[in-house]
Amino acid sequence: MTKRLLLAAVAALALPLPAAAQTMDAAQLRDAALKDDIAWDITEGLTTEIGPRLAGTEAEARARAWAVRKLTTLGFKNVRIEPFKMPVWVRGEETAEIVAPFPQKLYLTALGNSGATPATGMTAEVVYFPTLADLNAAPDGSLKGKIAFVSHAMMPTQDGSSYGYFGGVRRSGPALAAKKGAAAMLIRSIGTDYHRNPHAGGTNFPEGVKAIPAAALSIPDAEQLERVLKRGEPVRIKLTLTPRQTGIKESGNVIAEVPGSDPSAGIVLVGGHLDSWDLGTGAIDDATGVAITAAAAKRIMDAGTPRRTIRVVWFGAEEVGVFGGRAYAEAHGTDNHVAAAESDFGADRIWRFETNLPDSAKAVGDRLATALAPLGIAKGPGKASDGADVGPIMAKGVAAIDLNQSGLDYFNLHHTPDDTLDKVDPAKLRQNVAAWTAMLAIVADAPETIGRVAPAR
Amino acid sequence: MTKRLLLAAVAALALPLPAAAQTMDAAQLRDAALKDDIAWDITEGLTTEIGPRLAGTEAEARARAWAVRKLTTLGFKNVRIEPFKMPVWVRGEETAEIVAPFPQKLYLTALGNSGATPATGMTAEVVYFPTLADLNAAPDGSLKGKIAFVSHAMMPTQDGSSYGYFGGVRRSGPALAAKKGAAAMLIRSIGTDYHRNPHAGGTNFPEGVKAIPAAALSIPDAEQLERVLKRGEPVRIKLTLTPRQTGIKESGNVIAEVPGSDPSAGIVLVGGHLDSWDLGTGAIDDATGVAITAAAAKRIMDAGTPRRTIRVVWFGAEEVGVFGGRAYAEAHGTDNHVAAAESDFGADRIWRFETNLPDSAKAVGDRLATALAPLGIAKGPGKASDGADVGPIMAKGVAAIDLNQSGLDYFNLHHTPDDTLDKVDPAKLRQNVAAWTAMLAIVADAPETIGRVAPAR
Repeated sequence: MTKRLLLAAVAALALPLPAAAQTMDAAQLRDAALKDDIAWDITEGLTTEIGPRLAGTEAEARARAWAVRKLTTLGFKNVRIEPFKMPVWVRGEETAEIVAPFPQKLYLTALGNSGATPATGMTAEVVYFPTLADLNAAPDGSLKGKIAFVSHAMMPTQDGSSYGYFGGVRRSGPALAAKKGAAAMLIRSIGTDYHRNPHAGGTNFPEGVKAIPAAALSIPDAEQLERVLKRGEPVRIKLTLTPRQTGIKESGNVIAEVPGSDPSAGIVLVGGHLDSWDLGTGAIDDATGVAITAAAAKRIMDAGTPRRTIRVVWFGAEEVGVFGGRAYAEAHGTDNHVAAAESDFGADRIWRFETNLPDSAKAVGDRLATALAPLGIAKGPGKASDGADVGPIMAKGVAAIDLNQSGLDYFNLHHTPDDTLDKVDPAKLRQNVAAWTAMLAIVADAPETIGRVAPAR
Repeated sequence: MTKRLLLAAVAALALPLPAAAQTMDAAQLRDAALKDDIAWDITEGLTTEIGPRLAGTEAEARARAWAVRKLTTLGFKNVRIEPFKMPVWVRGEETAEIVAPFPQKLYLTALGNSGATPATGMTAEVVYFPTLADLNAAPDGSLKGKIAFVSHAMMPTQDGSSYGYFGGVRRSGPALAAKKGAAAMLIRSIGTDYHRNPHAGGTNFPEGVKAIPAAALSIPDAEQLERVLKRGEPVRIKLTLTPRQTGIKESGNVIAEVPGSDPSAGIVLVGGHLDSWDLGTGAIDDATGVAITAAAAKRIMDAGTPRRTIRVVWFGAEEVGVFGGRAYAEAHGTDNHVAAAESDFGADRIWRFETNLPDSAKAVGDRLATALAPLGIAKGPGKASDGADVGPIMAKGVAAIDLNQSGLDYFNLHHTPDDTLDKVDPAKLRQNVAAWTAMLAIVADAPETIGRVAPAR
């Protein structure tokens, strides 16, 4: 080997040097976090002592009070609730049965914003569409008095990307059916499991479109209904859904801080959402998200004072329309945020990270790669774009960091009664806390300036 | 090798010779059955066109009519219904919520024969017992006005043997609690899954013991309630259960036959149960059982005429007290049965077989071992003792043959809403049909006399 080649090889092996002013030892903090119990404690406490906490309800208010007590006890500073108002929809009765040709009960749940049937139910014939495109192709008025049923399947993806596509049936299918005159809409749950637990989730009826009754069948029930329909006889279903809009109510974001040593260096925003759908206890969606981010911030706080303030936000009312994220952005749009990161995809192992850091902070990204690699986390090919609640802040040009959990099992549980504490693996939860702790040690304490970026979305 | 050793080695390798008069080729029929579609067709049809079929209800009557049509279409002879009477309990409303200290809904289902709360529910404090023995140790009268809660866990076992032990809580726990003055009883579901689907099942209140409301919490809910109780504050639950006894109704056994060539050689009885619990569609419990046994008998029928008559019985009202099995034994106790076999443990792979054949038919057992080995099925160490419905026949000394499915996943689904068609693996179902076909080819066509045996239980 020539001297020139030898030098090149050594240079290629060299790791990026940490900047002189980064005082927090990300590797040491990361490894210590692999023994974390804080995130489990928060997850266990919130799911046990509050359980379901639908946005705008008394249960979500109890969750905020619980959160203030917990974050204060953990030693965070400036713990506070920032209230906001939002419309509240609540579930009522929800039953369904095939009346003919093969009488049997079906398991379903109303979609958020669903309209109601009469209290005694309604009975109508089912019209089947394999996909949303097929429903879209149905002539206007052709569904008058019928129950439209769209049943296209969804497969698991590690990055969760199929949810965007398949979720369209839930988000816009009922309004489409209503415009075509349907009396009600049934969808196959947007999920990947085979349990008799339907997946809740919101749907939207634009101004001027009647909110028809709309519900998700569990996946076994959707496939059962498909089999019944394939027999070729007219299929009639009795549907009883009595949800209602209860008007404008109060929700709120819970905020806590780890003050930094240099107020001019800006704020690193991390968090998840405190509200949950009402069927489960909101364990992976999103008790673990608020728990992971707070646990990581707490570990930084206990290790010393980072350069930047870390602001932990437990957003309210995410599930029903990102009301908390928008209220936060309205209230804090001019705060000096330099980076934002959200955990709202369960607590399976983090397998990838992506950033949207400005070129001037490239070294921060390099140090992240080095610190996360021992956890099995590799830099992904894209730009950070995650997080419904930090979306409005990112849209203003705040840099983002995504720590992506595997989504292969996430949609087995998402928005179902099955989203309960037993689904959280303590070892995987600790890997999450370790990744978030390392990330915060690097980003909050980075000597580099982190400026605005072009929004990734 | 000496000639003596060589001969010994050859002798050791030799397989038992088939008896000269056994004309059916068990190996050929077995291998052909690995492409069976009959069992899937029956399972799919029964679960789709009937679905849940609680004993003594109109749904079970529809199932009998469906069964007669199906068995007749398949070409069986002497297809008929043998009706009998039985008491019928039906489910009503069933809801529960923790009222204090942490308000939240719980998922549960009433146990068969449960008493009812007032229609508006009852609210009472919960008293926790880790095991049935702890409940048993509670002083008489100490539970007055309370809800007793027994929550001991169950682990999967391949042979299903843990169900006998842990099922005791469900079968006799509520009566025990009632005797001690409890107002109601909650148990952790007798199951091994972590889904929000409670496991139904019968309980018994002996004459003179008040039928208190009794229900099974899903396993995540039972563990949630344990966590809430461990906080140390009094826990109050509002419970609403409105099941009722509806009186004596008609059920029935559906019978079909493959006539044998030699009426004096006796009858081989095979079957499963047609009724199901009401929460699922009774796929693995026990559509697959009736499907596997009928498919195997049909394959024998299509291959020729066996020496013995094969009688296929789809028993009614098994789940709620083995009424069909007892009615059958009362009606047919003097019939010339020579062997009985029941499939009522799902449709996972058969891993083991056991028999209770008389010594005079040892060669039959040897041929079974040879025919089943290519399917990965080994002879077990015990004596055949399976089958609730054939139990009364076995108790009269009829020899039994058990083909044991693996039970490792069975209690994830047993008696839950999740017992649906999607849980049946077509390849495993075919392995079952192949094993049953080989068994019937050998036993129904065996030239040996198969006499009475000492009952295994």
